[in-house]
Amino acid sequence: MITGTEVLAGRVRDRNGPWLADRLAELGIELAHVLITGDRAADLLSALRFMRAEGVDLIVTSGGLGPTADDMTAEVVADFAERPLELDEDLERRIGEIIARFALRWRIDAEALRIANRKQAMVPRGAIALDPVGTAPGLVVPAGEQLVVVLPGPPRELHGSWAQALDTEPFKELAARAPRYRQTMLRLFGIPESEIAETLRVAEGEIGLDGLEITTCLRRGELEVVVRSDDSSDRASDALAGLIAERHGDALFSTDGSSIEEQVASLLGDRKVAVGESCTGGLLSTRLTDRPGSSAYFAGGVVAYSNEAKINLLGVDAELIDRHGAVSDEVAEALAAGAIDRFEADLAIGLTGIAGPDGGTEEKPVGRVCFCVMERDGDKIVRSLDLPGSRGDVRDRATTVALHLLRRLLRREAVPI
Amino acid sequence: MITGTEVLAGRVRDRNGPWLADRLAELGIELAHVLITGDRAADLLSALRFMRAEGVDLIVTSGGLGPTADDMTAEVVADFAERPLELDEDLERRIGEIIARFALRWRIDAEALRIANRKQAMVPRGAIALDPVGTAPGLVVPAGEQLVVVLPGPPRELHGSWAQALDTEPFKELAARAPRYRQTMLRLFGIPESEIAETLRVAEGEIGLDGLEITTCLRRGELEVVVRSDDSSDRASDALAGLIAERHGDALFSTDGSSIEEQVASLLGDRKVAVGESCTGGLLSTRLTDRPGSSAYFAGGVVAYSNEAKINLLGVDAELIDRHGAVSDEVAEALAAGAIDRFEADLAIGLTGIAGPDGGTEEKPVGRVCFCVMERDGDKIVRSLDLPGSRGDVRDRATTVALHLLRRLLRREAVPI
Repeated sequence: MITGTEVLAGRVRDRNGPWLADRLAELGIELAHVLITGDRAADLLSALRFMRAEGVDLIVTSGGLGPTADDMTAEVVADFAERPLELDEDLERRIGEIIARFALRWRIDAEALRIANRKQAMVPRGAIALDPVGTAPGLVVPAGEQLVVVLPGPPRELHGSWAQALDTEPFKELAARAPRYRQTMLRLFGIPESEIAETLRVAEGEIGLDGLEITTCLRRGELEVVVRSDDSSDRASDALAGLIAERHGDALFSTDGSSIEEQVASLLGDRKVAVGESCTGGLLSTRLTDRPGSSAYFAGGVVAYSNEAKINLLGVDAELIDRHGAVSDEVAEALAAGAIDRFEADLAIGLTGIAGPDGGTEEKPVGRVCFCVMERDGDKIVRSLDLPGSRGDVRDRATTVALHLLRRLLRREAVPI
Repeated sequence: MITGTEVLAGRVRDRNGPWLADRLAELGIELAHVLITGDRAADLLSALRFMRAEGVDLIVTSGGLGPTADDMTAEVVADFAERPLELDEDLERRIGEIIARFALRWRIDAEALRIANRKQAMVPRGAIALDPVGTAPGLVVPAGEQLVVVLPGPPRELHGSWAQALDTEPFKELAARAPRYRQTMLRLFGIPESEIAETLRVAEGEIGLDGLEITTCLRRGELEVVVRSDDSSDRASDALAGLIAERHGDALFSTDGSSIEEQVASLLGDRKVAVGESCTGGLLSTRLTDRPGSSAYFAGGVVAYSNEAKINLLGVDAELIDRHGAVSDEVAEALAAGAIDRFEADLAIGLTGIAGPDGGTEEKPVGRVCFCVMERDGDKIVRSLDLPGSRGDVRDRATTVALHLLRRLLRREAVPI
């Protein structure tokens, strides 16, 4: 249960729900629902009651432990668990010390902060207060048949509090009861969802899919198939993975959960890649540097939005742009060659296109993107594609295509797209 | 209600919930809950029943209209509304035409596609089927006291179907009953949440906050305060906005909902800004080019991860790096100067730092970021900050700080941070 009107209203992206879903999956605890609820006591309470009516064993809440009046999770959970709030004086002292340090750093009135945070030391009777990671302590609250784990909203604090909650007796008892299941993730690139639907129908007849939970989804131009099995269906899961590999071998690029970024990083080893990108505006470099340690394989990038930048920063021939246009295979190739040269890189990606919503023509519509992945003194792949969707979609998908072309080049594979 | 095990499990970020929240807010329809539910019929049905028990007027679902067997929203909603599914032959024909076009583009078997998609032409009796935007038609389904709007999951299809749903008679009747309210969004930069909590307590005494719904939240290093009021409390909302402006004038940068990206774009006008960034790996350029039309004010950027890239691409003096280190005010300034020079820009941002998790030292810890915003032959601002959080947090916050420093320079304001 994620609380916070800012999340409900869509002004803030919920990062805690997905993170907690991963942690629960690791523990073999099945997730039934994620409920996002505003900062209204009645809505929080009815959400908790819905969870109870669903018969769940565990309710995890995120957010609403802060100093402002709209932070009311502890109070509502106390009410739900029928455990009155009591001041924990030791906790109050510890929060006081933390706040004093904050106040020093921000150079503001410590007394105002102390009042703002005193309510964070209120704990439902008989509940376990976790050590505060920020200023708000998480809580582990037994509530009849349910166990409620109350976590602060800021992701860093939530992560630290979660680790502590796992170590409490009530949580350990609950986790011990969770059944074991296995999850297989298959990632494919370059085929539509309907082809997988067809393969699943074939599998239903040939293998039988009883006892498997299968979900498919499209993401950033890739297709993910997740198969969940237990002792009785592990063999069917393996058979299904085999069938998908057999029918879609060209498209299947990951069977171990690895992402395209991780695969590219590992294929690069100590070779360095550079980027010369236009319409993606820096997003391709951003994806290549998201992971810690990316300086081992990322040489650098140029966001060459204008023709002048292409010419001055990456040595693209002005005449080439005149002859073929800035969005052309030839310019994509010149961007890659320029990036290899200027960054003294082993490989490079050149990418130029029209992200939209404006700038398209009959001949070169919005969504047209030209790619070149190139090895210094070696192979290269050049491709043009028309990508569907909004400006954001085109930018996202173009970076996915670029990473897959680089993977193919590094693996010396033919490119089916 | 967002359906999809991939969303529930956190493998895919839900973009539909936030988008729908915005649309509902525009219509004055209050959002009570967002429920994310896996592709299990029993969970979908109990979620619908919870919404009914909460007494809502409108239920909007997203997803589960696709061709695979885990797509079961139409079936469950039909069951909930007690309206049996019936084949809509006209709809089947239209979907067939759409699929034929797809099949041509993907060069795959049209017959396999047709079978995969036939179930998408099944409509609950008496419901309105919307025109398919992709292959899945949205539905408007009266269900007793509730109206259920069933939308496809892919965002582009959801947006198109939503526009159509607004135009149906049952929806128009519902929208006409929604009360009017006003929402004020204040954005601040450079103060902790506890200071706003203190101001809200002062406001409670001086103004009285009855009838206001106030939420505060931290996002990417900015603080957002949203105040919702109705006819009876519009004046209190104005008074509160005035009090915040009075007490936090330096930090308050937006009162009209505009983002820092939008403000920077509008302040730049036809002047062009360039970027020389290191630890943000392209994210600063990405943020500056997210908006359509950004080529009007964005000259280009270099992601200068290595010292060689700083020297070769942006002309940073090697000796300067030796003397002060790559993460220093001096190098940030040289990156900005180099970006102005190489991109022939009017302004530039230089940014260098340690995003982590490794690479920190006693003297220069993880999170240290040095900034320079500079005008060609004009003013400049140079700042170093220690930013908290994970690698992702540091990268995010560093780009926010950089944009705010640029805003200050463009407005010729002093910098309090």
